[in-house]
Amino acid sequence: MNFASDNTAGVAPAILEAIVRANRGLAMGYGNDAVTERLQARVADMFERDVALFLVPTGTAANALALAQVVPPWGAVLCHQESHIAVDECGAPEFFGGGLKLVGLPGVGGKIAAREFEAVLARGPWGGPHHATASVLSVTQATEAGTVYRLDEIRQLAEIAHRHGLKVHVDGARFANALVRLQVTPADATWKCGVDVLSLGATKGGALAAEAVILFDPAEARGMPERRKRAGLLVSKNRFLAAQFEAFLDGGLWLDLARHANAMADRLAAALAIAGHRTVWPVEANEVFVILPRALDARLRAAGANYHEWTTGSVPADFVVGAEQVLVRLVTSFATSDEDVDRFMMLLRNS
Amino acid sequence: MNFASDNTAGVAPAILEAIVRANRGLAMGYGNDAVTERLQARVADMFERDVALFLVPTGTAANALALAQVVPPWGAVLCHQESHIAVDECGAPEFFGGGLKLVGLPGVGGKIAAREFEAVLARGPWGGPHHATASVLSVTQATEAGTVYRLDEIRQLAEIAHRHGLKVHVDGARFANALVRLQVTPADATWKCGVDVLSLGATKGGALAAEAVILFDPAEARGMPERRKRAGLLVSKNRFLAAQFEAFLDGGLWLDLARHANAMADRLAAALAIAGHRTVWPVEANEVFVILPRALDARLRAAGANYHEWTTGSVPADFVVGAEQVLVRLVTSFATSDEDVDRFMMLLRNS
Amino acid sequence: MNFASDNTAGVAPAILEAIVRANRGLAMGYGNDAVTERLQARVADMFERDVALFLVPTGTAANALALAQVVPPWGAVLCHQESHIAVDECGAPEFFGGGLKLVGLPGVGGKIAAREFEAVLARGPWGGPHHATASVLSVTQATEAGTVYRLDEIRQLAEIAHRHGLKVHVDGARFANALVRLQVTPADATWKCGVDVLSLGATKGGALAAEAVILFDPAEARGMPERRKRAGLLVSKNRFLAAQFEAFLDGGLWLDLARHANAMADRLAAALAIAGHRTVWPVEANEVFVILPRALDARLRAAGANYHEWTTGSVPADFVVGAEQVLVRLVTSFATSDEDVDRFMMLLRNS
Amino acid sequence: MNFASDNTAGVAPAILEAIVRANRGLAMGYGNDAVTERLQARVADMFERDVALFLVPTGTAANALALAQVVPPWGAVLCHQESHIAVDECGAPEFFGGGLKLVGLPGVGGKIAAREFEAVLARGPWGGPHHATASVLSVTQATEAGTVYRLDEIRQLAEIAHRHGLKVHVDGARFANALVRLQVTPADATWKCGVDVLSLGATKGGALAAEAVILFDPAEARGMPERRKRAGLLVSKNRFLAAQFEAFLDGGLWLDLARHANAMADRLAAALAIAGHRTVWPVEANEVFVILPRALDARLRAAGANYHEWTTGSVPADFVVGAEQVLVRLVTSFATSDEDVDRFMMLLRNS
Repeated sequence: MNFASDNTAGVAPAILEAIVRANRGLAMGYGNDAVTERLQARVADMFERDVALFLVPTGTAANALALAQVVPPWGAVLCHQESHIAVDECGAPEFFGGGLKLVGLPGVGGKIAAREFEAVLARGPWGGPHHATASVLSVTQATEAGTVYRLDEIRQLAEIAHRHGLKVHVDGARFANALVRLQVTPADATWKCGVDVLSLGATKGGALAAEAVILFDPAEARGMPERRKRAGLLVSKNRFLAAQFEAFLDGGLWLDLARHANAMADRLAAALAIAGHRTVWPVEANEVFVILPRALDARLRAAGANYHEWTTGSVPADFVVGAEQVLVRLVTSFATSDEDVDRFMMLLRNS
Repeated sequence: MNFASDNTAGVAPAILEAIVRANRGLAMGYGNDAVTERLQARVADMFERDVALFLVPTGTAANALALAQVVPPWGAVLCHQESHIAVDECGAPEFFGGGLKLVGLPGVGGKIAAREFEAVLARGPWGGPHHATASVLSVTQATEAGTVYRLDEIRQLAEIAHRHGLKVHVDGARFANALVRLQVTPADATWKCGVDVLSLGATKGGALAAEAVILFDPAEARGMPERRKRAGLLVSKNRFLAAQFEAFLDGGLWLDLARHANAMADRLAAALAIAGHRTVWPVEANEVFVILPRALDARLRAAGANYHEWTTGSVPADFVVGAEQVLVRLVTSFATSDEDVDRFMMLLRNS
Repeated sequence: MNFASDNTAGVAPAILEAIVRANRGLAMGYGNDAVTERLQARVADMFERDVALFLVPTGTAANALALAQVVPPWGAVLCHQESHIAVDECGAPEFFGGGLKLVGLPGVGGKIAAREFEAVLARGPWGGPHHATASVLSVTQATEAGTVYRLDEIRQLAEIAHRHGLKVHVDGARFANALVRLQVTPADATWKCGVDVLSLGATKGGALAAEAVILFDPAEARGMPERRKRAGLLVSKNRFLAAQFEAFLDGGLWLDLARHANAMADRLAAALAIAGHRTVWPVEANEVFVILPRALDARLRAAGANYHEWTTGSVPADFVVGAEQVLVRLVTSFATSDEDVDRFMMLLRNS
Repeated sequence: MNFASDNTAGVAPAILEAIVRANRGLAMGYGNDAVTERLQARVADMFERDVALFLVPTGTAANALALAQVVPPWGAVLCHQESHIAVDECGAPEFFGGGLKLVGLPGVGGKIAAREFEAVLARGPWGGPHHATASVLSVTQATEAGTVYRLDEIRQLAEIAHRHGLKVHVDGARFANALVRLQVTPADATWKCGVDVLSLGATKGGALAAEAVILFDPAEARGMPERRKRAGLLVSKNRFLAAQFEAFLDGGLWLDLARHANAMADRLAAALAIAGHRTVWPVEANEVFVILPRALDARLRAAGANYHEWTTGSVPADFVVGAEQVLVRLVTSFATSDEDVDRFMMLLRNS
């Protein structure tokens, strides 16, 4: 009953097999191999356009590289105040970006509202020699609150961003979970609604360690090979990263795995609702947030359930975490089974 | 006949099996797993002392993190002018180190001579507010020239370094190749002869992507967890890095693999000598450097041989690369077979 | 009628004379001169303890150097969300600090309340490898809102900071204005109430370009000479910076100049109150903030009055800037005369 | 008898008067003043073209800002191995440039020879993701050895640089000294022979603290205002920097002051030659390098002479510093008098 994170799961079998398969023979290092080349074409095909693709081993690396590439050191990244880049990456964007600034915006359910974004841009101060230059809007899809931006929301945010000279970055550590919920194509969910740069995650979705930075305008990629290398992020036996990604995408595996993870979250949320525990935010990806009595929480943990307590300022007004209560996050993954959910719920009901 | 690099090899079977084995069940991320914990104890045991251990996915990352940890931004790293950190990492040490300086020293066979090191320290200028502070001596073991420092050499360099207030870093991307040639223990070859920090490579030796920074004084590790994380180098499913390393070390596999790679280099060198091509530097690890006639080089390549032309200022005085000649590097690995060497030599003799 | 900033004033006559006087003869550069040495002793005397003193030409430089010295790259500086370091220095602290983070706290009148500070520390998340480490509390004295922290407030904030392992920095660009209002000594207002590092400004107070970083524990100054030099902030003819500072402090000139500036602000505030324009925050230093009708503002500017419109989220609840109103900042300085104030008020009354 | 540096001199009277004059009245800060505006036009006029001009208080700042502006973090600056940027700025270019690399070239008399420059570019390795990208050639005019590049030399170096995609930077801390020796115009000595960026010094020449970065293609200046500000190098009362520069240039004062300093160096060199001490390099600016017996050196210092011992690898083959000898540097300035030189020589002859 481990709902601590989707990175507690191992590697999806098909991806592990791809790694084993990629081990045949020799191959040139640093991405000069056949698998990496093949993947490049495949990703372009999937996004219905030429893209610049850079594989890296971690999501923090993907985000930080992506942002550093499109934001000057004196630029600001506007993001949700509880986003992964703002809170959970120990300053990686600032490090890679030569001291850029992250400006955190509030927003219910981990989402930035167009009105709030517009207001922050209007309020300023921005630019000139004295103030940071607003350079990028970064949104997380699916969000850290397990919610999903509708394409209209992305489109509206991107329109505001572009009108003010900002680019749009998507932290897509759980991008597949959003795609399958929205039932849209990768192209629809990115450049077709105004996204300029995407951190596309495979690790949480079932890979061993494989993430990608995708620039939808390949001309924007100038300097990225050097940037990745000097960050120690160019893996020498790169074919194994490419093989993971290829298997992840092959036959829509990534979407199947995400669909399963989402379904497990739905199953958990439904059972929790029946047990009287309404989820704090709509369950739209693979994360479930509920408020539990402290005593129940203690019993669950004592019985071996594993999950994180959560702190947020993003709870809707009608949810209050009482003194004897605790907000918790339950994350499902491709590896979560019906039985895992059912055992947890049985435990909860019997605690 | 791919002698381009030891990173053209894939993953050693036992290491790949360890990855597959590590895939059972769930495990907490970011190194809070049983395999990582086990490895920590094992590495300490191997080095006969408590050490601080940090796994990362690339050798460039290991070097850059290690140096940034022990050199202030205004510090200088003294290293061989053709070392990997100086030439092949696109400025990673400078990036991680907040703009530190690499000062390249000349030296035959990729090695820094004690006399040269002492002279550079004496010549200066060093320190004060105006000049860089000499902070670390970094040596590569085995060197980029395929040679190996004797322990006495390391000891003497370390003594000079410590006397002047510098720490000693070893870039050990091919550390195992040196150990087996010298027939010494890991402890003998590091802290017992004055090494303070080691970048210990497994990737070139047979892993998929696994390197380690080892600080022999764990008290020096303060801030390293944050440093690694914000560099995007903390792999979420860290058990897979630890599993690679564990299998690499298990039963002395790393030494066996290195012994084989060295033996293949010896075989190659011996055959080349018989064919009249004396190696430029003594073959002490898994790299062979020879001067070939340009015409022969062209025929070898046309026939499918793969290796890199080499540029160096480190050639002994009695070797001259003529106008119609080319210096080339041939690298062997755990995956190189007798047949690979023999086919290459046959091709060479028949070209 | 220039109330745009206290940096629109030139140099106080006594300070200019000191520059002229310092021009006699030759002197060693980079601070190895008699004036700098004399100043060092004098500042220690003034603060009633040994201190480490570093002169630089700008306030942004002083703040950024001070913070970089006491915060690791993965550290966070907690400061008012409208503080100069957060808003007006184009990311200097992030640049000097290797990508550190500024975390902006709200607070009425430009001041951080102990309760808010405590809450932010409690809420987190802080530290570990994933989150920024809360490292420094930075307060501005006098604040950007022209208010002044009482020593008890500083003491309480410092107590909380130290209890949580944070150091306390004061941005003292207008430190003298606070001292004379509080009628306390420099020692009382700094280390005696828990301040660890001070950026002490002279420029706004009447110097040409002279600011200081003062570390109350000289042992904390290790590396600062190098840090200042490599930031291009070690002025070669340093005697001229030292001479400015010496004249600034001599005979309490700095306090006299600040007292005058404050008195001019009081005069302005009193006259505005009589004219029906209540100041938004108490006038405790040399800045006056009032809400004016847009039409009046336009007439004042047309008649030659010079001042900045202000944007803030720090206005008390009972002040609302209406659609036809504008919040403005009026800054006085040592060079402001009674006549300047009276002419402005006459203009205002007649507009 | 202070020949330690040209920064031991104070401020030239006309420049000090300009500072005093600039003190009249109020002026907007941060360069939005009439003097700065006037200077901008004047400098453009002087260089016979539109230029982007950025004033800063130190020469290290000017160099580091200039280089950071035109070199990516993964770029390399090729410079003389004994240049100020390489040796005397404590890593400022690396800091400002996000970890760029300085590659030091040897060369007699502080000058880079075209042949050597071409060879280094050819030898490499350069660029790609693994190696630093050769981005800028930086030459010092006049050099640290007190020599001066002929315009043909600059032109030839610039031609090579541009052919390989590098820009050309001139560290002109003593630019005036070179101009008057060469009897050429500022335009002739810069963009007309291929210089892209100039650090133009006034401080050593007679200012208090005023240096400029000049970009000959103003389109290259994008981001510079932010870069200067966040480095803490935008002086708030900027009119005083502009006033220094204006007075420095006014009526050719800078050339007169440099001519005087050069003449004093010539006088010193001539007298030394008569006394049997041949200068190591031709005296072409305001620096004189001679080899003295250690005993003489000791007597001179005991008698109050002040100058620096020098270490260099740039001495011509026919000069050898013997065991009982010392190479010393004697620097003259606008403030050096005939009497200073004569007293030093009398001392030397009588020692």
